[in-house]
Amino acid sequence: MTSYSCPEACEKWGVFELALPGKTAGNPFTDYTVSAVFSHKCEAKTVDGFYDGEGIYRVRFMPSFTGTYRFTVSGSFSDEPVSGEFTVTKAREGNHGPVRVANRYHFAYEDGTPFYPIGTTCYVWELQTDELIEETFASLAESAFNKIRFCIFPKHYVYNLGEPRSYPYEGTPMDSSVLTTENFQQYTLHPEGNNFDLTRFNPAHFRHIENCIRRLGEMGIEADIIVMHPYDRWGFSHMTPEQDDLYWKYVIARFSAFHNVWWAFANEYDLFPDKTTADWERYAKIVCEKDPYNHLRSIHNCMPFYDHTRPWITHCSIQRQDIYKTAEYTNEWRERYGKPVVLDEIAYEGNIQHGWGNISGEEMLRRFWEGALRGGYPGHGETYLSDDDILWWSHGGKLKGESWKRFGFLLDILKETPGPGLKLSAGSGWDEVCAVPDDMLDEMTGSKNYRLYYYSFMRPSWREFFFDEDSRYQVYILDTWNMTRTDAGIHQGKFRITLPGKPYMAIQIKKVQ
Amino acid sequence: MTSYSCPEACEKWGVFELALPGKTAGNPFTDYTVSAVFSHKCEAKTVDGFYDGEGIYRVRFMPSFTGTYRFTVSGSFSDEPVSGEFTVTKAREGNHGPVRVANRYHFAYEDGTPFYPIGTTCYVWELQTDELIEETFASLAESAFNKIRFCIFPKHYVYNLGEPRSYPYEGTPMDSSVLTTENFQQYTLHPEGNNFDLTRFNPAHFRHIENCIRRLGEMGIEADIIVMHPYDRWGFSHMTPEQDDLYWKYVIARFSAFHNVWWAFANEYDLFPDKTTADWERYAKIVCEKDPYNHLRSIHNCMPFYDHTRPWITHCSIQRQDIYKTAEYTNEWRERYGKPVVLDEIAYEGNIQHGWGNISGEEMLRRFWEGALRGGYPGHGETYLSDDDILWWSHGGKLKGESWKRFGFLLDILKETPGPGLKLSAGSGWDEVCAVPDDMLDEMTGSKNYRLYYYSFMRPSWREFFFDEDSRYQVYILDTWNMTRTDAGIHQGKFRITLPGKPYMAIQIKKVQ
Repeated sequence: MTSYSCPEACEKWGVFELALPGKTAGNPFTDYTVSAVFSHKCEAKTVDGFYDGEGIYRVRFMPSFTGTYRFTVSGSFSDEPVSGEFTVTKAREGNHGPVRVANRYHFAYEDGTPFYPIGTTCYVWELQTDELIEETFASLAESAFNKIRFCIFPKHYVYNLGEPRSYPYEGTPMDSSVLTTENFQQYTLHPEGNNFDLTRFNPAHFRHIENCIRRLGEMGIEADIIVMHPYDRWGFSHMTPEQDDLYWKYVIARFSAFHNVWWAFANEYDLFPDKTTADWERYAKIVCEKDPYNHLRSIHNCMPFYDHTRPWITHCSIQRQDIYKTAEYTNEWRERYGKPVVLDEIAYEGNIQHGWGNISGEEMLRRFWEGALRGGYPGHGETYLSDDDILWWSHGGKLKGESWKRFGFLLDILKETPGPGLKLSAGSGWDEVCAVPDDMLDEMTGSKNYRLYYYSFMRPSWREFFFDEDSRYQVYILDTWNMTRTDAGIHQGKFRITLPGKPYMAIQIKKVQ
Repeated sequence: MTSYSCPEACEKWGVFELALPGKTAGNPFTDYTVSAVFSHKCEAKTVDGFYDGEGIYRVRFMPSFTGTYRFTVSGSFSDEPVSGEFTVTKAREGNHGPVRVANRYHFAYEDGTPFYPIGTTCYVWELQTDELIEETFASLAESAFNKIRFCIFPKHYVYNLGEPRSYPYEGTPMDSSVLTTENFQQYTLHPEGNNFDLTRFNPAHFRHIENCIRRLGEMGIEADIIVMHPYDRWGFSHMTPEQDDLYWKYVIARFSAFHNVWWAFANEYDLFPDKTTADWERYAKIVCEKDPYNHLRSIHNCMPFYDHTRPWITHCSIQRQDIYKTAEYTNEWRERYGKPVVLDEIAYEGNIQHGWGNISGEEMLRRFWEGALRGGYPGHGETYLSDDDILWWSHGGKLKGESWKRFGFLLDILKETPGPGLKLSAGSGWDEVCAVPDDMLDEMTGSKNYRLYYYSFMRPSWREFFFDEDSRYQVYILDTWNMTRTDAGIHQGKFRITLPGKPYMAIQIKKVQ
């Protein structure tokens, strides 16, 4: 009587999914187990399934190889044995697999293609209306963003007092009509009036998010999923350890087969009143055990950093530590943690009342170049006041700022880096940022094939260079704001490059081979 | 046969000067002594005189009281006894006396009028042609600058390879035609080809500087005199201790009677290859002993600070320690040293190749407001490329930048401070600079009469305030760049002030009495 659905084929790094009818007595989210073993001559993985409502359990799997896979499902969810096989075809064009850490400080897709994150933050864009979500997708398509940070739980915060499109649990939320900008924070500390069953998920909530993750993946955008956050009025940040663990396992079972998933354990982990380091470490243990694909894992701070040296943390997800000096610390953080540095919050471009959300487009772009050339990966967000209170940073919608238009130019330049990424050159002058390939071989052979100088807010009218007597160097002048690249000729020996005496200029120097 | 000249009267804080014929055999600069005691019912001071060439010795004195002074000259310079008396009249309007430290972190003239330094740097403006000097005076007159930093010795440095109008010693300099931008620095470390008698001063050099100091004084501008500096090709930074001491004593004897003199012991003390702390401390001892008026004393760094806690140092003269964060450290330095913080170098506005000389007018003005509202006193300089290599920072001339035009507005606002100056409020939000009067009484009585908020590069569209339920507050919105003050009304209780969402805005709040 087994009537499960099983596709015959799946593309490499795609999502293979089994839909399995199963038991519904009691609470199917907690009372039964479901898992499967997937095997191929090159890999064998055990993955957990999940209950998706209406009597259906699902098991998802992301194959990493082409060819024949076999699977066997087990668990108390059903008394029927299920097994089968399917064929994995080559990856869809544009699907390079999950992103991995490359060369200690950088990223590459599993197929080896370097990945230079140009991230943005839209905390709950996917929990808005269909119309607004489509607007966000359109904005993303127009932009160079290849990573977006967002939450699974809805968000309760300044400019975020409205209702999400759905809730992750069965039940009903508190009456939001009582909320004001004055009183909303008391509900974060002491949620009341909610009536959720924190052992019964709302599959529709997650299914919708999955659709968003899938579409992002098709657009080449990584989904940096914030699993927990403290901007709460519903009690989701105050759950018991058992409820938390149930949630983490459900999220992992549902989302981890999507190649473009990153696990952002928390936004501002240090703002949760009830959580301790032991809690975060316990979640980390669950993720390391349950995520079969080893997706990237990070945890983001408000004030003090989490200890990014912990082995489960794949890269630093950093909120700046100072108002004035932000991305300029990137190279120090690299040295301190020995991991990629992703600057997920260096203030947002905008004009709201808060200092974290009112820098100019020029300053945002400057922080991007500073961070990128120091070998890190800055992130964007926008908080422009709006009559309808739609702010990109939380709700998505239309991009209104100036910096986002200019990240494509930066990304194009980053893609010219020989090797896996950039780092600050030890020979950088005190009044410049000189980036060189973060490539031991280049250093050992002294080839110095590539140099990228950035002058930030400084406005030199010229700079002089001397590398050696014999080599020839192709020089380009980059106006990072106006996105122009000017051929400044081929030079040898000592040479001088004239600049326009404006801020935000860069010089790119390539050795002529 | 005594035929000395002695004025019958002198204004308070003016320069009383005796011209005394004396011996000329041997070296009059070193072989004879000359000093005088000046006495009044309220003070008695011993001052050294100096040889001014052509057989004339001079003794200068700045009286601090009105009424009758008597004097007696002594020394080996002459065998004739000289004594006499004169009347001191009230100070010329605008002469408030020498500047003193007030209330630990601030300045006031001796008559009690607060002094808020708005300084600029023109290292050797006074050693240029008459025409250029007049241009500098005209520029100063048009500006709000009330302090100028400059050197007694000529300057040898990038953009400074020309000849000064005169030298401080008898003799001849090296041939400057051999200098290039490539080789000039080797002459700083190893001066050669000079033929100066370092025991015989050139009085004309000093007389000219005195005329400049006097004119500055008449304009209400303090002369922050850099006595020693390392930008040398003539050997003046490599003199023996005896030669150094002779120089210091000569400078003190000549200049200290000018009310507007400040002693800047060095520019970049840490760049002298031959000088040790013991040398600087020895000069300090000389100045403390020989300057009868206790003019302000400071010493300026390139990299590490001198120990500004030394008792002879009246205020910190600071070059920034970081490219990105500069005047924002002012409050920390105040706390560290317990003295006024004068930021004599926070980069210069301009467009030359060096990072210390190519920030924008906006950034310079921003640093001024940041520093001023944190209770310090930032300084200006301009380094705009010029076909004639006339850069304000060294040569004076015309001001070409944008920031200088806007310091008058800042000074006007500073003059509204109740009490001696500002400090960063302990209640300053993390994303604002809130300055309050640096006045213990205001703190003790909780009167909170005055608050000045600055938002720097941030662009809040509004801010909310609440101080108490009962008081009424007059609010002004300041656009620090466009120099406008907008009346935002009188408010009580909790209130919101709307801002234009632009950078460089400030809010001034005065309690209605």
